[in-house]
Amino acid sequence: MVHAPPRPPKGAPPVRINLYSDTQTRPTAAMKDAMMRAEVGDEQHGDDPTVHELCDRMAALMGKEAAVFLPSGTMCNVVAILTHCRSGDEVLAHETSHILHSEGGAHAAFTGVQILPLRGPRGAFTADDVRAAIRPRTRYAPPQRLLEVEQTANIGGGAVWPLAQLNAVAAVAREQGWNTHMDGARMMNACVAAAIPPTEMAAGFDSVWLDFTKGLGAPLGAVLCGSNEFIGQAWRWKQRLGGSMRQAGICAAACAYALDHHVDRLAEDHANARALARGLRQIPGVEVEEPDTNLVFFDVRGAGTTPEALQEHLLLRGIAVSGLGGRVRACTHLDVTAPMVEEAVAAIREALER
Amino acid sequence: MVHAPPRPPKGAPPVRINLYSDTQTRPTAAMKDAMMRAEVGDEQHGDDPTVHELCDRMAALMGKEAAVFLPSGTMCNVVAILTHCRSGDEVLAHETSHILHSEGGAHAAFTGVQILPLRGPRGAFTADDVRAAIRPRTRYAPPQRLLEVEQTANIGGGAVWPLAQLNAVAAVAREQGWNTHMDGARMMNACVAAAIPPTEMAAGFDSVWLDFTKGLGAPLGAVLCGSNEFIGQAWRWKQRLGGSMRQAGICAAACAYALDHHVDRLAEDHANARALARGLRQIPGVEVEEPDTNLVFFDVRGAGTTPEALQEHLLLRGIAVSGLGGRVRACTHLDVTAPMVEEAVAAIREALER
Amino acid sequence: MVHAPPRPPKGAPPVRINLYSDTQTRPTAAMKDAMMRAEVGDEQHGDDPTVHELCDRMAALMGKEAAVFLPSGTMCNVVAILTHCRSGDEVLAHETSHILHSEGGAHAAFTGVQILPLRGPRGAFTADDVRAAIRPRTRYAPPQRLLEVEQTANIGGGAVWPLAQLNAVAAVAREQGWNTHMDGARMMNACVAAAIPPTEMAAGFDSVWLDFTKGLGAPLGAVLCGSNEFIGQAWRWKQRLGGSMRQAGICAAACAYALDHHVDRLAEDHANARALARGLRQIPGVEVEEPDTNLVFFDVRGAGTTPEALQEHLLLRGIAVSGLGGRVRACTHLDVTAPMVEEAVAAIREALER
Amino acid sequence: MVHAPPRPPKGAPPVRINLYSDTQTRPTAAMKDAMMRAEVGDEQHGDDPTVHELCDRMAALMGKEAAVFLPSGTMCNVVAILTHCRSGDEVLAHETSHILHSEGGAHAAFTGVQILPLRGPRGAFTADDVRAAIRPRTRYAPPQRLLEVEQTANIGGGAVWPLAQLNAVAAVAREQGWNTHMDGARMMNACVAAAIPPTEMAAGFDSVWLDFTKGLGAPLGAVLCGSNEFIGQAWRWKQRLGGSMRQAGICAAACAYALDHHVDRLAEDHANARALARGLRQIPGVEVEEPDTNLVFFDVRGAGTTPEALQEHLLLRGIAVSGLGGRVRACTHLDVTAPMVEEAVAAIREALER
Repeated sequence: MVHAPPRPPKGAPPVRINLYSDTQTRPTAAMKDAMMRAEVGDEQHGDDPTVHELCDRMAALMGKEAAVFLPSGTMCNVVAILTHCRSGDEVLAHETSHILHSEGGAHAAFTGVQILPLRGPRGAFTADDVRAAIRPRTRYAPPQRLLEVEQTANIGGGAVWPLAQLNAVAAVAREQGWNTHMDGARMMNACVAAAIPPTEMAAGFDSVWLDFTKGLGAPLGAVLCGSNEFIGQAWRWKQRLGGSMRQAGICAAACAYALDHHVDRLAEDHANARALARGLRQIPGVEVEEPDTNLVFFDVRGAGTTPEALQEHLLLRGIAVSGLGGRVRACTHLDVTAPMVEEAVAAIREALER
Repeated sequence: MVHAPPRPPKGAPPVRINLYSDTQTRPTAAMKDAMMRAEVGDEQHGDDPTVHELCDRMAALMGKEAAVFLPSGTMCNVVAILTHCRSGDEVLAHETSHILHSEGGAHAAFTGVQILPLRGPRGAFTADDVRAAIRPRTRYAPPQRLLEVEQTANIGGGAVWPLAQLNAVAAVAREQGWNTHMDGARMMNACVAAAIPPTEMAAGFDSVWLDFTKGLGAPLGAVLCGSNEFIGQAWRWKQRLGGSMRQAGICAAACAYALDHHVDRLAEDHANARALARGLRQIPGVEVEEPDTNLVFFDVRGAGTTPEALQEHLLLRGIAVSGLGGRVRACTHLDVTAPMVEEAVAAIREALER
Repeated sequence: MVHAPPRPPKGAPPVRINLYSDTQTRPTAAMKDAMMRAEVGDEQHGDDPTVHELCDRMAALMGKEAAVFLPSGTMCNVVAILTHCRSGDEVLAHETSHILHSEGGAHAAFTGVQILPLRGPRGAFTADDVRAAIRPRTRYAPPQRLLEVEQTANIGGGAVWPLAQLNAVAAVAREQGWNTHMDGARMMNACVAAAIPPTEMAAGFDSVWLDFTKGLGAPLGAVLCGSNEFIGQAWRWKQRLGGSMRQAGICAAACAYALDHHVDRLAEDHANARALARGLRQIPGVEVEEPDTNLVFFDVRGAGTTPEALQEHLLLRGIAVSGLGGRVRACTHLDVTAPMVEEAVAAIREALER
Repeated sequence: MVHAPPRPPKGAPPVRINLYSDTQTRPTAAMKDAMMRAEVGDEQHGDDPTVHELCDRMAALMGKEAAVFLPSGTMCNVVAILTHCRSGDEVLAHETSHILHSEGGAHAAFTGVQILPLRGPRGAFTADDVRAAIRPRTRYAPPQRLLEVEQTANIGGGAVWPLAQLNAVAAVAREQGWNTHMDGARMMNACVAAAIPPTEMAAGFDSVWLDFTKGLGAPLGAVLCGSNEFIGQAWRWKQRLGGSMRQAGICAAACAYALDHHVDRLAEDHANARALARGLRQIPGVEVEEPDTNLVFFDVRGAGTTPEALQEHLLLRGIAVSGLGGRVRACTHLDVTAPMVEEAVAAIREALER
């Protein structure tokens, strides 16, 4: 149900068209320039001005009181769950969520929480689904403590949770006294696609984070936002996990650059994704989900092949895609242009029509 | 989705007909007599002869090398998962399993494992269901380490897993190099109902345990069985959990008595359960699952009431039943006779026809 | 530094004089009679009247609001630390404490706490020792959450903490906002020896427990006491650990019997221990600590032998003692009479003078 | 007992002479240039050539089979202990060790291990100390699994463990079947000071890591080395902790630059530290430990002041030092020159002589 990294077949050329993941963007010359000019200090002593500035900007952008810089998005989820919960608690999350499938069981291992998987189309569930999952408060059931959503929902097809649905599930959580957390790895894609500002998108949630290494194109770093008290406690877990860094401003400068220059352009990635979907839909036997953002999932079993076989075929032509749960995933991003999309569609057509 | 203990309404008489749970049986005079005559020693130093004898009998009965005495069935599951797994591992179990709903999140809290819920009718899943849940072995997915089944499946309706299906799911686990564990809280009910000896029923599983406080009627105690190495390690966790006792032979003697006198008679409980189901089925609006063993689940929503309302009504008549996930559960056992079943049916009919 | 259980040499007779541990007392006929007459119910549903009565008595005896019955003293420590702390916290305890040496690393394993060992003679430390161990409140140091004492201190020689010293260390903890916990496995020995009532002895501590299987002679059971809120949360951990039982009133009845009949007589055990110490002191080369209670530690290295050699020699004569950290420990209790003590001294003298 | 970060008093100028910590070095222009030229890829997919090259170099340098890049030294310790141990195990380490005082209780929280503190002068213990701490292998004691040393020992005064002593303690661990781990945060200082190559220094240890952000002057990163199997498992924990990064080659390039240009020059830091110690020793009332490497600990209580008062006084003059366990610590590094050391001595003299 999770990522299988592609093993390039022998004799495969370097990847020219990388639709494998938006995590594989390389920093641009301008971004690197910003990194080099950054003023830095000892981040774990609270002395790095560039990190401070990034955190202040992010807190404002997300409408939260405070923020903390972390080396990765996975660590944002790990720190958030450690901070929101204690061992023996239960977290409600979608059955396709990243925390359940792609973080190596970290939440049980480190926090001791159990995840109760909720169902629903495209990685989202409804307020009624949440209500139906409320447990009686007895000694037998784990205490329910946290509701988590993933915006956009990766395995859900890069789908955007509608704002009303987000607010409705968060309202049930509040009624129950639960905390709420948004895994916003690709949240900016949702904001751009839905034309809703991040403060509004995250308003129902106690904590939210953004990954700068996906569509935003930075080499390293994510920022977790929440209340002053939440971030104060999160810092303690960051320290314990080894997420405290030293002159991290060099990396934070790339993130700040991305906020300035790489947010609005996500619309191009979405347009490229739609073009890709249109192209694929012309190929007989291919079933394509209409992309909300920059992820295009398609099923090639109707064309008589498997994701693995297609992956291998394309790698021999310098094109990378990924396989996820029986489907193929193609991801558009900073390093993918419209002509590359056309070439990829042609190569896929050629592969499937053989 | 879990037990809600009944709160007797004001003015309710003492419970005369206890269909709430087979955990509520009281030790008989003969059982207490056996307890008093038991030879005892310091159990946690391995010096209690009555505990030794019970463990030897249980190992032989289950076809395993060794066994360990524990204060409860929940501790058997906790110890088994601690012994089979390490933190960050994943356990595959049915979505209605006791370990997921009724042990307070203990497995995440103490072992750090994640439970992947499998679906299927009546608390059971198939070998194909297991195969579909196999994860790629990448750094992103938690390592899958243990397959767990519950025989009989409590929330599954006290249903008996067919032997062939047990063996088939265990075979997939073995192919994958996983360990296998049977929660045999009510396993003797399954063996009696299916006329299959425990050795055969547990043959596909590395560990299995039996609870003596349910249909077998002992006041305290469960025995976990497995290989010599498994039980050696289980002892370490028993010690850490505080499950090591002192002159526990007094309690073990009740369990040994139950093995001698309370196993074959489970057939009566099953006959009483079938009679109860037959009686309930005559009541308009009641939907009844045909019981495999001693648990009768029925739905009273068609009769225009709720489990809670029915529970309260019956408690006022000295009859206890439980509510589980929108249904009513009635459980037959040592302290429930055929006339009591008749009386209960009449009281339920009266309640629903008002 | 911990118990090594004695392996009886080949050809050793049954143990007649058991100075190994007060955990090895066998229930008397009168105690068993009380057990058989006990009224019982489903303990984990809160329905066992004998357990309720014992808990009420214990809460009153210790001067706390509430109490919970558990299968062992180790589980009392495990539950208390799970309830007082969360993972990443630090517990301050004596470097010889039971939780550090004799519970298999349970506190790190289940709660995720670190134990900071304090030093001091005979298992006790002073308020100054505690003050010197206070950490700065930074992100680098674990938060200090709990101060634990062991009354009497087992490896400390069964020594009784003076009340003023207990109160002084508890006062520092309160100033710091820490919780306080008393491991009272043999607390009644301290109360009898010091002629101080338990309410006063435990007054400075948020939680305290008593083991009924040591000098009090019951087969199984310990009771943990604290505030209503503390015990409410402790119940949740009891359930998760598998410490919830069914008709546990049978065992609780033995504990209630012990409270009635086996507390005052601890003075006899202490007199026997002093007699044992006096006798041993006459043997050349033996160094004996003056016992406060029922534990006599002595060093036989000056007599040219080892604890292990002496243990083996005595077992061949039907006498059991234990070895602990290079010393020999002899423990008096319910099943040890004054003539047995004399016989043991004679046998030790004979062994050492050979 | 741990770092208290200095809070600059109001009106304090910027720090000109930073003896607070070698973690506060800023990347040089040449180092930044190397970073910008680095070839990068997706590190967590194993696709970053600069990270690969650094790991290969480090494995060779340390004489181990493999290596993994991590965001911090604390994460190296966390990952190593997670990989070497499982919950309920015990780790033997010096009572002043970083893992016990400066990682927030992470090892108990994440791995569930207990740390048994060993004593000895200057952060080191002997083979006899280790032998005296061996526990009997019973169910009561936690299994001892790992021996950890810190080279150089920070709170031990930056002291260098003599190679023979390292090998002797490692030999005891091997006899016992334990794993061995070297916290090599400042190991290069030890190698340079003792003129012993890293392969030899680390030869007795299963795992070893080096921090690039201390004397080596890189902004971020540490490398953990061990066997292929160890590093394979370490990668799983890195992923779970959120230590997997994306285009991390940018940071790895700074580390590679440091290996090329900042190792030999540690000798200058050591000479500066000795000069600092010499200067301080002239001040009446100051007691100074002779530094082995770049850390100078001194006691100012004899001069009638406290570390905190001295820290504050010096900050008003643009000089930073740290306070650790009642002593003052001054640390020399890349950004500290010989004239700065002279100025610092003069300022301290002036402060203390007032």
